[in-house]
Amino acid sequence: MSLVVCKFGGTSVASPERIKMVANKLIAKKKAGDDVVAVVSAMGKTTDELVGLANALNTNPPARELDRLLSTGEQVSMTLLAMALEAQGYHAMSFTGRQAGIRTDGTHNKAKIVSVRSDRIMETVDKGIIPVIAGFQGIDDNDDMTTLGRGGSDTTAVAVAWGIKADVCEIYSDVEGVFTADPRVCPRAKKLDQISYDDMLELAGAGAGVLQMRAVEFARKWNVVIHSRSAFSDAEGTYIKEAPDMEEAVITGIAHDTSEVKVTIRGVPDMSGVAAKLFSALASNQVSVDMIIQNVSESGITDISFTCPGGDLPRARETVERIVPTINARTYIVDEDIAKVSLVGTGMKSSPGVAAKAFETLGQNDINILAISTSPIRLSVVVDAAQAAQAVQCLHSAFGLDSDSVFVETQLSAEEIAAKMNKGR
Amino acid sequence: MSLVVCKFGGTSVASPERIKMVANKLIAKKKAGDDVVAVVSAMGKTTDELVGLANALNTNPPARELDRLLSTGEQVSMTLLAMALEAQGYHAMSFTGRQAGIRTDGTHNKAKIVSVRSDRIMETVDKGIIPVIAGFQGIDDNDDMTTLGRGGSDTTAVAVAWGIKADVCEIYSDVEGVFTADPRVCPRAKKLDQISYDDMLELAGAGAGVLQMRAVEFARKWNVVIHSRSAFSDAEGTYIKEAPDMEEAVITGIAHDTSEVKVTIRGVPDMSGVAAKLFSALASNQVSVDMIIQNVSESGITDISFTCPGGDLPRARETVERIVPTINARTYIVDEDIAKVSLVGTGMKSSPGVAAKAFETLGQNDINILAISTSPIRLSVVVDAAQAAQAVQCLHSAFGLDSDSVFVETQLSAEEIAAKMNKGR
Repeated sequence: MSLVVCKFGGTSVASPERIKMVANKLIAKKKAGDDVVAVVSAMGKTTDELVGLANALNTNPPARELDRLLSTGEQVSMTLLAMALEAQGYHAMSFTGRQAGIRTDGTHNKAKIVSVRSDRIMETVDKGIIPVIAGFQGIDDNDDMTTLGRGGSDTTAVAVAWGIKADVCEIYSDVEGVFTADPRVCPRAKKLDQISYDDMLELAGAGAGVLQMRAVEFARKWNVVIHSRSAFSDAEGTYIKEAPDMEEAVITGIAHDTSEVKVTIRGVPDMSGVAAKLFSALASNQVSVDMIIQNVSESGITDISFTCPGGDLPRARETVERIVPTINARTYIVDEDIAKVSLVGTGMKSSPGVAAKAFETLGQNDINILAISTSPIRLSVVVDAAQAAQAVQCLHSAFGLDSDSVFVETQLSAEEIAAKMNKGR
Repeated sequence: MSLVVCKFGGTSVASPERIKMVANKLIAKKKAGDDVVAVVSAMGKTTDELVGLANALNTNPPARELDRLLSTGEQVSMTLLAMALEAQGYHAMSFTGRQAGIRTDGTHNKAKIVSVRSDRIMETVDKGIIPVIAGFQGIDDNDDMTTLGRGGSDTTAVAVAWGIKADVCEIYSDVEGVFTADPRVCPRAKKLDQISYDDMLELAGAGAGVLQMRAVEFARKWNVVIHSRSAFSDAEGTYIKEAPDMEEAVITGIAHDTSEVKVTIRGVPDMSGVAAKLFSALASNQVSVDMIIQNVSESGITDISFTCPGGDLPRARETVERIVPTINARTYIVDEDIAKVSLVGTGMKSSPGVAAKAFETLGQNDINILAISTSPIRLSVVVDAAQAAQAVQCLHSAFGLDSDSVFVETQLSAEEIAAKMNKGR
């Protein structure tokens, strides 16, 4: 008998029918003898619709009001799930973030959890009642509703699991768990039975969309075991935990990310201070620069490239256009058709040959490397977007990750999954 | 300079455009030097939609969960109104029932207000910020959201007005105020400048839909001045207040109500205990009996009729069908096409000729009286529904209530107004 937190995202509660499925999942666990605590996101597109209403009245809505408005989405889904459980004869009670004891700082729209008081939740569990908690929200010292920003519901689930000392925090989504690569791109990808927090963070940071980084960071800090699994099957998913018994794979998985863009400034005088001028201007204009590439100087003139998220491109263009004349550069070009492919593995630290093997593999496959960046447990290369799938596949084979069998798709189409992976709270 | 509570119903905030209109009304008051506090209902059909969602999951949803679900409607409208005010450069903050300090008992779905703590609202007003309060909701001793049931938002407004010692509680709706009769039925009806709480309560109880009785009862108890007025014009409406200087009109107004039905049990043995058996059975089956008519007995056999709300008819039928054989009555018939027409006036108490004059007037107009009931300040008659308008008009003339001019309709159609008058919270 375990105490389990079960978090369901927006697609899992998108309709009354899906909410009934979620209720059945919780009931099955209860019948198996576990105590369960549910955490839910808002139904399907609710949040987008609420943002639309707000923007119809105020193009820059006050953060406090927006938080309260958005928080209604989870209040709806939590009460509906409680009703669905009651309809099946299982006692359930819904709780807002405030009622669940989730206190945050006052940074509306991206509040940070400062404490979790679990008394009321545990009293409820002890009475045999299933608590259903609104994800994504908390209360600040002004007694005002706050929201936690992107990944908020996953973070709520991990925080609650920590607060009530749950055995595991199950995060249900439309994918079966964490894979060695995206199965839609690499059909021989394998589901991992377990992965360390560090590897998971690097994979998530490099584009793997299964879990929100913030929730994983919270889990690592407080040592909460996460079980990432599918809402649409009963198969075991992937455990994310600190595991001393875990064999340190050189490469745990390969992530790819097509959301970045590359900007190249041409004909830059190779003088000290020029790069500083460019990058401090980008930073002060809120452009998140990821990689930087500076070519070898020829006769005092060079090119500087950098990559940044596609969403930052308008600000990047604006900055670069302003800076190019002031540094006497010739011009700039933007390449949106790039992909970042990242090898992640804690074991990489003690295996110096990874980079060489990766470059060799890509070279043999005629894949041109446009940029490189590394961390102690990650190696990322930028390639043409058109070659991204091929790059993932050949690296996946070269590092011995291929499964014997080809992954079987879930019932959702790739487009549906892709759409879901790119949002969620 | 006054302190004014302004309450806007669901139709007034049904769309972003209407919410902007409401914001402009509040701003105009603010510009005129008043301090304003807004109270809002949920947007348009929101509540019905939420009930529909709940019923899709549970045909008998738990009251606590339903309250939380329904309360999200007002959370949405209050934040949107605050955003609309901010967009125009006026500071505003929304407050849930809990944040506004409205404490209730724990009777979910029809909670009663037990106290109002106005500190936070008044601090907000004192800072020059417009508070926007969610109507219809409060918090109970378990820290759970409650809703106040029908007429709840009007009651919230009156309770807040009392709590902050406002000069007046303005209740905006689609009608211009309280009329001597329904202008759609009686074109010579006049808008009243003021009316006493007692007269207003009798009119509301007799079918006049402008204000919720419960809010008027609260206002009478705590002496809160209500100003019932139109959300779609700037004209003064009707003040509801205790006014010693008010001339006690014999008849203040005439209400009509077509929602009741009449049930007649035929061939009842005229024996003691028979009526008691019938009406106690009806009472225990939650049928709200309004009027009772027993015909003169002929040879020990009589007829008994009663009226009740149309919504109680299924339960009334079920009861009567069960009782008819046990009291050896012959049969029963149901008449749904009836109307109750009520004369209301505090001055009636000291004018004994009202009933005689009313019966005479109806007789001269060939209107048959099916039943009669009275209170010290009300005389109600039941007539055929087809003659209801004629009855209202001839009584309106006979008691000198006719206006010189014919009422000009608001921009809403009669159907729209009728639909609105029959609901609202």
